[in-house]
Amino acid sequence: MQRCELLASITAIEGGICRTYLTEEHRRCNRQVMQWMREAGMETHTDAAGNCWGHYAGSDMDGQTLLLGSHLDTVPGAGRYDGILGVLAAIEVVARFHRRGRRFPFHIDVVGFADEEGSRFGATLLGSRAVAGLWDSALLALCDAEGVSMAEAFVEFGLDPAKVATTSRAGARLLGYWELHIEQGPVLEELDLPLGVVSAIAGARRCLFTLQGSAGHAGTVPMTMRRDALLAAAGAVQLVDAVARRCGVVATVGNIEVWPGVVNVIPGRCEFTLDIRSGEDQLRDRALAEIIDGIDALCDRSQVAVTYREIHSAAAVACAARLREAGSRALARCGLQDFSLPSGAGHDAMAMAAITDVGMLFLRCAGGVSHHPEESVDAADVALALDVLEAAVEETWEHA
Amino acid sequence: MQRCELLASITAIEGGICRTYLTEEHRRCNRQVMQWMREAGMETHTDAAGNCWGHYAGSDMDGQTLLLGSHLDTVPGAGRYDGILGVLAAIEVVARFHRRGRRFPFHIDVVGFADEEGSRFGATLLGSRAVAGLWDSALLALCDAEGVSMAEAFVEFGLDPAKVATTSRAGARLLGYWELHIEQGPVLEELDLPLGVVSAIAGARRCLFTLQGSAGHAGTVPMTMRRDALLAAAGAVQLVDAVARRCGVVATVGNIEVWPGVVNVIPGRCEFTLDIRSGEDQLRDRALAEIIDGIDALCDRSQVAVTYREIHSAAAVACAARLREAGSRALARCGLQDFSLPSGAGHDAMAMAAITDVGMLFLRCAGGVSHHPEESVDAADVALALDVLEAAVEETWEHA
Repeated sequence: MQRCELLASITAIEGGICRTYLTEEHRRCNRQVMQWMREAGMETHTDAAGNCWGHYAGSDMDGQTLLLGSHLDTVPGAGRYDGILGVLAAIEVVARFHRRGRRFPFHIDVVGFADEEGSRFGATLLGSRAVAGLWDSALLALCDAEGVSMAEAFVEFGLDPAKVATTSRAGARLLGYWELHIEQGPVLEELDLPLGVVSAIAGARRCLFTLQGSAGHAGTVPMTMRRDALLAAAGAVQLVDAVARRCGVVATVGNIEVWPGVVNVIPGRCEFTLDIRSGEDQLRDRALAEIIDGIDALCDRSQVAVTYREIHSAAAVACAARLREAGSRALARCGLQDFSLPSGAGHDAMAMAAITDVGMLFLRCAGGVSHHPEESVDAADVALALDVLEAAVEETWEHA
Repeated sequence: MQRCELLASITAIEGGICRTYLTEEHRRCNRQVMQWMREAGMETHTDAAGNCWGHYAGSDMDGQTLLLGSHLDTVPGAGRYDGILGVLAAIEVVARFHRRGRRFPFHIDVVGFADEEGSRFGATLLGSRAVAGLWDSALLALCDAEGVSMAEAFVEFGLDPAKVATTSRAGARLLGYWELHIEQGPVLEELDLPLGVVSAIAGARRCLFTLQGSAGHAGTVPMTMRRDALLAAAGAVQLVDAVARRCGVVATVGNIEVWPGVVNVIPGRCEFTLDIRSGEDQLRDRALAEIIDGIDALCDRSQVAVTYREIHSAAAVACAARLREAGSRALARCGLQDFSLPSGAGHDAMAMAAITDVGMLFLRCAGGVSHHPEESVDAADVALALDVLEAAVEETWEHA
């Protein structure tokens, strides 16, 4: 917890936390984290993508490698735990093994990914994508808000942008990847459980809907002669909620805008976004199709034209059954109730699934709040999380 | 119609029409209109508020005065007829009397109000308010978008801001005020009628509603644990429509905004506007009370806090029965079907009702479109409108 506080002080903004990719704060954070890694008995290095690594050698030099980690970057105005806690917990678990002289017949590598949030360049999972062999050199052309390209930022950081792809550990003999992360949702808190095992990381699909009705004077057009784009959108927002509940997915209209957007003019046009997620892609796609059909039908009834385009689509990533089972046994070993839940948010494990089995543990956080200074976890829960992550490493090996 | 085109060329913006209060365009427009007034046999002057007047003396020097007119200013990006047509029609009707040597035992004053739209200073009906004795010197402190106060604009226009109130014709011996205006709505077109007599000018009440729910991650908060401010607002938008239809009023949610307004965040806060109107204040107030109660109840069910504040309230203005009857008889005299409709939009007649009986004639316009370059009227309808306005003047006198 003290280390979380300390990292929170490495920030680009006064009075808040902001630590983005390839910045001076990134460098200072890596330096601090690698010092802790070394104190925990690990050899450290920074890879070609700016991720920091700690290596805890196993008893068998030719053994596989188990990866533990999460990310060290933050959104602007972040909390202290999102990502960071997973890296620090992994270091602490290795420190425990180190103190006890516990060596496994496999190596343990702890990774602090340098970019998951994508706050600087608008593309997410940059650190884990590089490690997972998913790096695309076209990313280097992306620019930050100041117009600095990612390629320039690499050079400034002291890294060669042409070598980022060499970070890939695709093809390496990997035992799996474990990531502990705060839940960022209210489910564990609601059920009074400190920890849960993640079943799958939901993939989101996002659409932008545009409804075109007819603008008109709020005083002079009778109710029966209107083609009010907002009125149709209101029906769509309610339909999204109803279909999501019935299908057991989550769906959100996060933004809505109307034109001309004036108190005394009937909205002629309305745009709104839709974000829909599920741990099961099929279920999600069926619900989305039902939503689109429903919106088509209600706009037709309202004489409002509707178009939509998909602006994002990601497949769900299932956590490996053997790691989920190891997680469940780890909970039991620590005297905790077994509980499994999907992750609605994206995580580095999504990228890592391209090269190895992934497992995730969720830690309860107050009110489900994240990406906010009030993000908060309970110290007793964190102590339990260290025990469970340690047990998960043991269980992963014992049933490998 | 040619005169409407000519006035459309007196504009502050390239490729569109914009003519606001106390500007060079206002001055040029007044000059042109007063020339046409003189050609129609009137004596002209500009009053202390910048309105232009034409006086067609009656046979009895001590007779009453019948006022005819509308406004000459426009919104930015306006059409050619809103307001302007009413002034030009009044001039043409007087020109007909003048050509025939027809004098009444009352005077006819044609007025071109200098500000109805309120586009420059954000306060409407400035010209007619001054004439109706409703001028408030606090208005002089209002500033335009460039920071020029109304008082400064008066001086620049060559008028003394301290003397605006002298414009008032309150207490004068007035026979009434007739205003011809485009409908700005689709009712006449829908019924295939060129003209109608206005029964009352609806008064609008406007409220701003704020719904406070709870923002959250679109992926991690289950549907059953959400307090989605937009979802509650969607129910409110539908409620507004249902109550308005049932009560026979018009009600409009013209603008809506959500916070944080991001594709992957559940809206924690939502604000929307409500505009509700009726020719009958009681009916409107009952409908508004029902809407507020309904929104309270649905927000309560959704665990969303709701507050609202009224941002505008104006009473309906009834057109005088004797002028409505004169209008009906004028329609009959011209072989047209009698038809009466309320005005949902505000007009100079609302202010003028403070000092004299008001009557209004509505002219059908294409698609109900106004405040838009595509605002359009039929030349044959305009010819009929001149006949009906002329007949209305005769009828007003004959049954005075």
